[in-house]
Amino acid sequence: MPDTRHPLDPDDWGEFRALAHRVLDDMIAYLEDVRERPVWQPFPDAARQALEVGLSENGIGLEAAYEELQRNILPYAIGNVHPRFWGWVRGTGTPGGILAELITGTLNTSAWGGQQAAPYVEAQVLRWLATMLGYPESASGLLVSGCSMANLVALAVARDAMSGADATEDGLRALRRQPVLYGSTETHSSIEKAVGLLGMGRRSLRRIGVDADFRIDIAALERAIANDRAAGLQPIAVIGNAGTVNTGAVDDLAALALLCQRERLWLHVDGAFGALAALVPSLRPMVAGMEQADSLAFDLHKWLHIPYGVGCVFICDAPLHERPFHAAASYLEPLERGAAAGPHDFSRLGPELSRRFRALKVWMALRAHGTASFAEAIERNVAQARALAGRLRAASWAQVLAPVSLNVVCFRYVQPGLTDRELDQLNRRILIALQERGIAVPSATVIGGKFAIRVAIANHRSGEEDFDALLAGVEAIGKELAPIRA
Amino acid sequence: MPDTRHPLDPDDWGEFRALAHRVLDDMIAYLEDVRERPVWQPFPDAARQALEVGLSENGIGLEAAYEELQRNILPYAIGNVHPRFWGWVRGTGTPGGILAELITGTLNTSAWGGQQAAPYVEAQVLRWLATMLGYPESASGLLVSGCSMANLVALAVARDAMSGADATEDGLRALRRQPVLYGSTETHSSIEKAVGLLGMGRRSLRRIGVDADFRIDIAALERAIANDRAAGLQPIAVIGNAGTVNTGAVDDLAALALLCQRERLWLHVDGAFGALAALVPSLRPMVAGMEQADSLAFDLHKWLHIPYGVGCVFICDAPLHERPFHAAASYLEPLERGAAAGPHDFSRLGPELSRRFRALKVWMALRAHGTASFAEAIERNVAQARALAGRLRAASWAQVLAPVSLNVVCFRYVQPGLTDRELDQLNRRILIALQERGIAVPSATVIGGKFAIRVAIANHRSGEEDFDALLAGVEAIGKELAPIRA
Repeated sequence: MPDTRHPLDPDDWGEFRALAHRVLDDMIAYLEDVRERPVWQPFPDAARQALEVGLSENGIGLEAAYEELQRNILPYAIGNVHPRFWGWVRGTGTPGGILAELITGTLNTSAWGGQQAAPYVEAQVLRWLATMLGYPESASGLLVSGCSMANLVALAVARDAMSGADATEDGLRALRRQPVLYGSTETHSSIEKAVGLLGMGRRSLRRIGVDADFRIDIAALERAIANDRAAGLQPIAVIGNAGTVNTGAVDDLAALALLCQRERLWLHVDGAFGALAALVPSLRPMVAGMEQADSLAFDLHKWLHIPYGVGCVFICDAPLHERPFHAAASYLEPLERGAAAGPHDFSRLGPELSRRFRALKVWMALRAHGTASFAEAIERNVAQARALAGRLRAASWAQVLAPVSLNVVCFRYVQPGLTDRELDQLNRRILIALQERGIAVPSATVIGGKFAIRVAIANHRSGEEDFDALLAGVEAIGKELAPIRA
Repeated sequence: MPDTRHPLDPDDWGEFRALAHRVLDDMIAYLEDVRERPVWQPFPDAARQALEVGLSENGIGLEAAYEELQRNILPYAIGNVHPRFWGWVRGTGTPGGILAELITGTLNTSAWGGQQAAPYVEAQVLRWLATMLGYPESASGLLVSGCSMANLVALAVARDAMSGADATEDGLRALRRQPVLYGSTETHSSIEKAVGLLGMGRRSLRRIGVDADFRIDIAALERAIANDRAAGLQPIAVIGNAGTVNTGAVDDLAALALLCQRERLWLHVDGAFGALAALVPSLRPMVAGMEQADSLAFDLHKWLHIPYGVGCVFICDAPLHERPFHAAASYLEPLERGAAAGPHDFSRLGPELSRRFRALKVWMALRAHGTASFAEAIERNVAQARALAGRLRAASWAQVLAPVSLNVVCFRYVQPGLTDRELDQLNRRILIALQERGIAVPSATVIGGKFAIRVAIANHRSGEEDFDALLAGVEAIGKELAPIRA
């Protein structure tokens, strides 16, 4: 047999240890000093070109690779660890989280099941998360890579539970009637993707209009369901939003739960970030009804600040959960004892068989920080959003474009005499300048046809001075860039 | 506005730094001393119960959480970092990989796209991987959480490309004919799961028989296709295996490519671990034809030893890739400059929008170690499997149950006078004892109705002495446990 050299372990562990401690110090400094750096900077051509090297047979070694990484990669992240990052909806991460990732990589286990700590930790974390959100603890849950996957899992279960045939086994062509699903126009693109992937056809997702608060119009929803039934289609599910991506709106989930009960439809709540509002007593009423949903999807790398990527899905009626995912394979049959034994098999609850041990970082965060720290960070972000909107409403140069429900503020810079189209163009340039000057990273959206600067606050590092900087920056850049009109 | 305290950052960075360095030292020691520990040990009730604590409002702090982790989680992984772990097919991981995970958690970026290093790194890594496997560099690729997701993505693309209608938009009920797919009886369960999820019905996956080497029977496949066409069904795709999970068999991929060209079918190759054989010149002929596949899926956390979870999918005809995944959303519209600009949008190529920066650890591994180290580890594992099979064939107490193609050896302990059923029971007990005594972790499967101890060698730490220990262990335990018969 060949020799026992381990080509991928270090020749010299002492040398590796020294490098590792240096990397760790750099990473801690990266977080400790984050406020001193620009929130974002353009990715320069030189760094991009430096990455475009051919594959080499003989590596350059860990230390040299790390130096390249420091030069060409590390300075050019999107910026969501920074206190003035409010783009899209991104969590901040935590210093504890980087230790959890280090440990996860060391254990390097696959968390499908078996007689090891990982599945038990996941089961415990799932119980905690259900408790935190007020969802039934008897629900079946799964950690996935993010809310897009959580939505996919939930809608797969809904499809199989509601379509009146064994869709997984027999396929969609075996259904007597076309399944139809409903969500507001504000529903996230991942829902549409999931419906298409599951073979139901994206066209079968009905986009229902919203009210002035961007919440689904329940009367319009009822009419759409009645029309589809009359047309011989089969309504199966309603998607309720707890925190829409554009404006942070929360649908009237209690009303949707009532409607779904009456109409015998599956209620899925996409609570990507908004579900976490349930952690805060003063905000919990906003998501009332969520606990009655048949399924619930949310992210942990957004408002819970767990490092990317981890989301969660719950299915209330636990036995339904494995219908689209169960699989039998002789090499996976558990033995009565040994490494393969044990009650858990998470591969029966989602598309993945090999699974990163995502639960570890969630466990560590909740165990170390408790729920109060997270609730406090969430509550503070909502207060910050409301305060920001208040200051914008009071400013002569600003217009708030949507009501602020949770943590998202959509606004634009305005100047009398400019058309909407000119304002769109001006605000695009303001947003780009804010980012390029390293002042702040909001993102953009379109509200009622108007280009909006969108500040989504899911950042535990943001303080009052950061919003001061944003307001001062927008006003100054706006004045600088706005065309002078009589 | 509220104060600027950051509830999830440490009050005292010096204290955090001290803890972090301690954790790092522990993690390095965990890997350096891995050989001194049992490969696996049962997860004790006390540790399990210690995890079952209620959610607390006030956390116990990072240090105390880490101490609980050290006590109740860390010693109880499945064992794949150990030199004598050969269960299922699991990669070993690397010390460099733990640094990459630390850095990934610190950056904490979402790698969907935008003007940041992450998508450029991913694009570069994908080019490298295509080169490594001899797959066309013009292919469209995506890093996903593992091969199950890679198979799902590939079959979604195949469904939309081949089913003769816009399946994503209109749904499967709009298809004139039922799509049918083909794979051998050895095809992985994730293929069946994907076919079911995609709405085609698991029943539409035809399981074709195999030859004595567990390779798909091409003549039987041709007959099945002809029969299905005659029955008015629509054959769309063949799944070829590069390394089956049970025995490591590799289908005749060149013959499948020819057949698919002739029959105008999509060829998808599931190369979960076997695709990496292409890295080794002496093994590359085994996977010849793979480069002609319309899509290719494989794992990087198996035979490339990248930390869990990362796999890759390639779609040869790049424009087809985004058909099942494209999505438009006003909050995602790129601006001409700024953080959201840039040519990449990986969310259009798979189900995920938020995406962990998985490419970083792959980049770092390939850059630091080069391809030769990985090729050497793979070649050595194949040599080890062949040598192990040779020693088992020479042993009076052993029977090899399947030909050894790559790195999987299926065998059982035998004793004259015992029935197959008694041997099944005996070998189950031998396998459990091997694991419980911390000697080695093979897993199990069933070959031709016979219970098999399955040694899947995807471990860069295994050396000759480890296989000595396995053989000595099986023989001794077999003699100890076997019933005495005249």
